[in-house]
Amino acid sequence: MLEIVAEARGHTAGDAGEHGLIGLIAERLGPPPRGEVWAGDDTAIVASPGTSLLLTTDLVVEGVDFDFAYCDGTDVGHKAMAASASDIAAMGGRPTHAMITLALATSTPIAVVEDLLDGLTEAAMSYGLALVGGDISEADSMAIGVAVIGAAPQRAILRSGARPGHLICVTGTLGGAAGGLEVLRKKMVLPSGQGRALMDRQRRPQPRLDAGALLAEAGACAMIDVSDGLLVDLGHILDASGTGCRLESASIPADPALAAIQGFDALHAALTGGEDFELLLTIEEKNFPAARAGAAKAGVPLSVIGRVTVQGRMLDERPLEEFEEDTWQHLRTR
Amino acid sequence: MLEIVAEARGHTAGDAGEHGLIGLIAERLGPPPRGEVWAGDDTAIVASPGTSLLLTTDLVVEGVDFDFAYCDGTDVGHKAMAASASDIAAMGGRPTHAMITLALATSTPIAVVEDLLDGLTEAAMSYGLALVGGDISEADSMAIGVAVIGAAPQRAILRSGARPGHLICVTGTLGGAAGGLEVLRKKMVLPSGQGRALMDRQRRPQPRLDAGALLAEAGACAMIDVSDGLLVDLGHILDASGTGCRLESASIPADPALAAIQGFDALHAALTGGEDFELLLTIEEKNFPAARAGAAKAGVPLSVIGRVTVQGRMLDERPLEEFEEDTWQHLRTR
Repeated sequence: MLEIVAEARGHTAGDAGEHGLIGLIAERLGPPPRGEVWAGDDTAIVASPGTSLLLTTDLVVEGVDFDFAYCDGTDVGHKAMAASASDIAAMGGRPTHAMITLALATSTPIAVVEDLLDGLTEAAMSYGLALVGGDISEADSMAIGVAVIGAAPQRAILRSGARPGHLICVTGTLGGAAGGLEVLRKKMVLPSGQGRALMDRQRRPQPRLDAGALLAEAGACAMIDVSDGLLVDLGHILDASGTGCRLESASIPADPALAAIQGFDALHAALTGGEDFELLLTIEEKNFPAARAGAAKAGVPLSVIGRVTVQGRMLDERPLEEFEEDTWQHLRTR
Repeated sequence: MLEIVAEARGHTAGDAGEHGLIGLIAERLGPPPRGEVWAGDDTAIVASPGTSLLLTTDLVVEGVDFDFAYCDGTDVGHKAMAASASDIAAMGGRPTHAMITLALATSTPIAVVEDLLDGLTEAAMSYGLALVGGDISEADSMAIGVAVIGAAPQRAILRSGARPGHLICVTGTLGGAAGGLEVLRKKMVLPSGQGRALMDRQRRPQPRLDAGALLAEAGACAMIDVSDGLLVDLGHILDASGTGCRLESASIPADPALAAIQGFDALHAALTGGEDFELLLTIEEKNFPAARAGAAKAGVPLSVIGRVTVQGRMLDERPLEEFEEDTWQHLRTR
């Protein structure tokens, strides 16, 4: 039976065509609740998750944001969904509905498309998020767009809420996704579970959804997810808030598995590596115990890595500008 | 002053970098209403347009959906926004908020990016739709993703509502966008305003937003926008409704400007040409006068082109299958 279906669809995206591929999306969505319409019409119809909505879109592109040399379609699907859900978490909100857009070459194997959709669907399901539809386009290289809406919390946590004196905190550990990329690119073999742990950080990032909501409740004043790297993302908070910072290098929670990569600068990876999808926040000192308890409830440690200052951006005694060259930004050629 | 800004941004997307380009989006958005946050944070925050939402995403790709040989960045921006807004219109809803995603090559001239953003912004504004944020990615070829949410009407008009006996109606005229593409590709010079009219249909499509809402109120039972071509889009209605049709070729409103293209089959273009973004609907005969009055109020004619039948799909005495080869579908290679 499965073979018959595979036969009917052929082996590439071009064999299946746009309508066949949309069918692949539709069959993964499951039945919508009463009153909602998911795939199969001009738009989806969903119950609004609240009076105030969070909206975000993200696009990942083959050769720029991922490479099939070191991940498969399922990984790509997981990561694309994680990136958008993480943006919602960084506001203290809950993602509720997602729409996807796939741009595919006609030569893309159907098996890869199925993997992609499996990854997107599995990730959505694990976040309690309904994937409600999608669209297929043709392109020379693959790209996956994910649009997510969510319920805004009573008080959404903006980037602009940092004030001098706040503690700067980060969930979990940093640099693991960058380390995982190094392991994958160089095909390193690391002792015991450390290689696997790092590769998983790179290929299957976990957005901090529960932590985001609990940290918002505990009094986070500014929050962002670490997608471009700690220094870049902290820079966004400081820019939006008009403040400075002093970070303590000894407190930066570099991923312990990084120690297994010989000659790798773990602190540098923790400062500049992207895609860890941890949450970075500032909070009044008096609220820190509640925040740490909230994070613990979500199963993730919370580290204090420095303080917000009036101006100047320092790591110990070094200005952060010194790291500027090493930070990631799409499209930058100079 | 403008020159200084241009200098600071450089001449290509790679000179400006992701953050510089996001700045170009942000400066076009205008100030959000109180309580909303648009560009500049992890997500946008917007007031929900209602208890029930319409969601749609669309992606247009250079070389597949548009070609800079015959349109400019402003045209592309207009058309990308039109395509998503049109999907909302086809449900009888009103688009309220849009997020955009641009995938750009580093070599893309900043002037083209500015044109794109101008087109997206102008179109959004003309639809009474708030563009609330966006994201920039890197890619080899250009792609523009538009996610739109809207308020669902009391009764959203699905594709599945067609019943035998319904009249099949379409707004405006068909085939103009396909004719415009022909004019542009072959650099034809047509008499008086006809060439301009056809090129405008191709480059600056107008979604039927007012008509969509008024046709829904007047009792439309099934509705879709003509984006892939009349026969393909009618096929979606018939498939979803489990019905057939009989169309009358003499009633199909081919764009009158098509007559100016020598040797061009206007009826064929009206049947198979995409991107006209007219609305195709079925309605009970008794409600047709109200529907025609609603369309007229929106400034657009409404033509009866046939009837929904129990089964079989005919144009006069010809089965619609005969046109299968000529219809458009993304990715299809066979």
